[in-house]
Amino acid sequence: MKKMSLNDTRVFEQGMTRFFLVEDSPYFKIINFNLSAGHTFPVHSHDLDGELSILVIEGDGFFLGKDGAELPATTGDILISEIREPHGVRAESDMRIVVTIAPPI
Amino acid sequence: MKKMSLNDTRVFEQGMTRFFLVEDSPYFKIINFNLSAGHTFPVHSHDLDGELSILVIEGDGFFLGKDGAELPATTGDILISEIREPHGVRAESDMRIVVTIAPPI
Repeated sequence: MKKMSLNDTRVFEQGMTRFFLVEDSPYFKIINFNLSAGHTFPVHSHDLDGELSILVIEGDGFFLGKDGAELPATTGDILISEIREPHGVRAESDMRIVVTIAPPI
Repeated sequence: MKKMSLNDTRVFEQGMTRFFLVEDSPYFKIINFNLSAGHTFPVHSHDLDGELSILVIEGDGFFLGKDGAELPATTGDILISEIREPHGVRAESDMRIVVTIAPPI
């Protein structure tokens, strides 16, 4: 049992995405990404079985999908995607997300 | 790919915990629990391999563990626990958590 605070990883750097590994076990990987306003975490996918969740804990932007798809994303929104589905995030404001990937990649 | 808003499940009921299933797949289960102030989600465990995360998205309380262990829990805190470790939550204020269990149980 271990606890951490995502308030301790609230770091933004203009023009890039900072990330902090919360957990990496045989069961899942949890990563906190902090995107600076205007930055994009590019659409990508991996040819693996599994799913991921993206929970917005602060800020506004868009969830990105295949063929240019965009879904508005704000605090409290959660996206579920297969690992093999194209997915990404674009930040409008400084934006914080928690990504959980199972199984871990 | 599917999106939902946890703002749509912000429901509290005095003296109890409301829960909303966000995702249930072969890879993980994600549940939003909303504990009313003063309510306890009792310490429990399952004799299964796997891990879970508990992310506080609103409110204050305590993460509970074995032998009466208590760790303060506030918005932005995340607890990682094995499924077989005793774990629970006690709410001081109305409190919302997102629990991810992998593999799902």
